[in-house]
Amino acid sequence: MTIDPLALVALFAEYGALLDAGRYDDWLTLFAAECRYTIMPRENYERGLPAALIFCDGRAMLEDRVQALREANKYNIHSDRHVIGLPRIVAERADGALSVEAPFAVFQTDQEGETRLFATGLYRNRLTARGGSELRIAEALVLLDTAAVPTLLATPL
Amino acid sequence: MTIDPLALVALFAEYGALLDAGRYDDWLTLFAAECRYTIMPRENYERGLPAALIFCDGRAMLEDRVQALREANKYNIHSDRHVIGLPRIVAERADGALSVEAPFAVFQTDQEGETRLFATGLYRNRLTARGGSELRIAEALVLLDTAAVPTLLATPL
Amino acid sequence: MTIDPLALVALFAEYGALLDAGRYDDWLTLFAAECRYTIMPRENYERGLPAALIFCDGRAMLEDRVQALREANKYNIHSDRHVIGLPRIVAERADGALSVEAPFAVFQTDQEGETRLFATGLYRNRLTARGGSELRIAEALVLLDTAAVPTLLATPL
Repeated sequence: MTIDPLALVALFAEYGALLDAGRYDDWLTLFAAECRYTIMPRENYERGLPAALIFCDGRAMLEDRVQALREANKYNIHSDRHVIGLPRIVAERADGALSVEAPFAVFQTDQEGETRLFATGLYRNRLTARGGSELRIAEALVLLDTAAVPTLLATPL
Repeated sequence: MTIDPLALVALFAEYGALLDAGRYDDWLTLFAAECRYTIMPRENYERGLPAALIFCDGRAMLEDRVQALREANKYNIHSDRHVIGLPRIVAERADGALSVEAPFAVFQTDQEGETRLFATGLYRNRLTARGGSELRIAEALVLLDTAAVPTLLATPL
Repeated sequence: MTIDPLALVALFAEYGALLDAGRYDDWLTLFAAECRYTIMPRENYERGLPAALIFCDGRAMLEDRVQALREANKYNIHSDRHVIGLPRIVAERADGALSVEAPFAVFQTDQEGETRLFATGLYRNRLTARGGSELRIAEALVLLDTAAVPTLLATPL
């Protein structure tokens, strides 16, 4: 696969923007039909512990999860802001897939208008090129810097 | 217009760097001669409420505003740090203008040396190409995640 | 030197990622054989005061420093997250070297799992092209927004 690094910037930019705008259906289209989405503390990942906070195997399961988040957010009204740092290509796999990384900070603003740091971490994603061009997320691994994220369910990361 | 996505990265990078360095005159040159600069809470924007915290119609008005900020900053000594996330092209308009977005976090350090999160939000800008090449800001819409920004006037965003 | 702006994004992305992963030996390879690494408060820099918090002249001195950080981190267990904003090319020097800048925020997570803003600032680096292609850091100047960084030694920036 010929990699366009700008496509990588665009993909991560869209990822964060669509989540922050609450456009979850559009966000889902960034994923490949067969995909995995995992949120786990960085420490668990580094120690090889399998315990994930969220694990979705397949687009249908991810859609269900998004629907549940929507329901939950009716009672936990807030807005999110993803500030995603510079992405990098870690490896190009033999099957043409791409291992990429980008750090992130997510800020949350509550109904009183107070904005707080919500979470920081690292995306370690595997990408595929759909139709030879557009990049799609085959695997999103969201590594959180802490295991102590409050009210995690209310925020897609 | 043929879009160079790197020019987009460069424009936002300059935007933040010039503000943080207090180089307001150079920052003004990033704007087109005819321009608009608006700061408003995201919520107002989404609800279609017109109430802006700052609204400048034209470069002269923006220059006046910058001059006022300079005066105000003599009494509120602090430094800013814009961390602007990955930008994306939202749409290319029929007239050749470009709708772009980038999320941001601004941190502020006071005279005691304490650094705090000041504001997060989203730039939704309209760009034009000056002389067919260099991008300029025809419209800067700074959407704040909160309506409760303290001492807003002292900080260009 | 023909500048590839994407190489600039990649270099800063690697810089932050390798530090956050604790891969200090790999991080050192981003520096040229002859290099300088300085951390100083922005205020000192702007006033022309020479006082640096850390100053390493040459790769060997930087390696020593990294080794000392490793020792110190055995007693101050935490993890870091660099969120580096959009980089820009400030100038291309007559000798082919490149002056570049990027803003950053570093977040730190302690053993209790609490994540806090640790420091914000600006990288003002001078880069050279090794073998005419790969960018290397000949001079890293880390300008901190505050002079009051707690437990600074425990965190490479």
